[in-house]
Amino acid sequence: MILPESFERLSALFRKFPGVGEKSARRMAFFLLRQQPAFSEEMARLLLDIREKVRMCPECGNLTEESPCAICRDPLRNSALLCVVESAEDLLSIEQSGSFNGRYFVLGARLSPLDHEEIPVETLSRLAAKVEAEEIEEVLIATNPRVEGDLTAFAVMEALASFAVRTTRLAYGIPLGGNIGFADRMTLAAAIEARSDMPRMSRGGRR
Amino acid sequence: MILPESFERLSALFRKFPGVGEKSARRMAFFLLRQQPAFSEEMARLLLDIREKVRMCPECGNLTEESPCAICRDPLRNSALLCVVESAEDLLSIEQSGSFNGRYFVLGARLSPLDHEEIPVETLSRLAAKVEAEEIEEVLIATNPRVEGDLTAFAVMEALASFAVRTTRLAYGIPLGGNIGFADRMTLAAAIEARSDMPRMSRGGRR
Repeated sequence: MILPESFERLSALFRKFPGVGEKSARRMAFFLLRQQPAFSEEMARLLLDIREKVRMCPECGNLTEESPCAICRDPLRNSALLCVVESAEDLLSIEQSGSFNGRYFVLGARLSPLDHEEIPVETLSRLAAKVEAEEIEEVLIATNPRVEGDLTAFAVMEALASFAVRTTRLAYGIPLGGNIGFADRMTLAAAIEARSDMPRMSRGGRR
Repeated sequence: MILPESFERLSALFRKFPGVGEKSARRMAFFLLRQQPAFSEEMARLLLDIREKVRMCPECGNLTEESPCAICRDPLRNSALLCVVESAEDLLSIEQSGSFNGRYFVLGARLSPLDHEEIPVETLSRLAAKVEAEEIEEVLIATNPRVEGDLTAFAVMEALASFAVRTTRLAYGIPLGGNIGFADRMTLAAAIEARSDMPRMSRGGRR
């Protein structure tokens, strides 16, 4: 072994993180050694802290240290609008867009027969009960635009079939700041399919 | 704040690692929450462990839990050949190539006037003393192929100027598995400059 065992073992843990390869994991461990000891100490403490303090909000499934979470407690939120997402990560992305003012429901699961993943029946029942009890008017199904997300969306729609609630989904198309040359065929097809009219420009003198 | 404070603070620490952006840092924190608590506990322990156990080898500057390090202790190494690198990371990469059987000397510094970085005089004296005392025959200067690396290499050569030791450097050129179309102009220029003759192919019947 060229490197100390504790170093290799920490690298191996970093390696397990999403998007971290062998070289990156090592760079992270080297980086740690270059920091003041306080850095490692704070990190060690936070690692234990988040496992202890962070819980799922019993209302929506968001991550929180309080119960219910800040979003569920917020009286300024539109309580008639519910956004269903696969994960708390997706919730965060939508929240950061600043364009959604309703509440959320985190499934914490997706339907993927190939990966043997299912949405627990209780989760869908809880969603249905919430839609009924809280008089939700619109459910925005924000599952990821891929096969598993579509299957998950169908499962949600099925669970809500008996309610007179409007169900919507996010628009699919070319991402803003994106590049048509780099867009994949499926995205382009979706963008063409869902094309929208441009507003008429009025020119003085002509009609 | 949308997310729990401890979560945000851990993300902020991940964010400081090299090559980790805001989204990656969050993904890493989310990943942690999905693991068993034992994962966080082991990681917290290792973070403190490496700070406590891992030391610099007094001989070569490599990272080690023992003194001297495994490479310096290895009697099968060619002790007349010394490779000078900027960092323990670079040492590791060279070691992993499996093509170097000498020993190392980690500078732990580089010469970069723009960043106000210098190589401590003691480091260069230690290197010179080592070259003299251990009867080193060849010093392979493996600094990084950029301005700071070249300056560092010159500083090393200067420190060794009074010894009758062969100094060499790594070859520069197109990386194997690389792509000429993607190679930068400097690399291509270096590769053309250092071009080598192809072996003559012998054909039966013709001379």
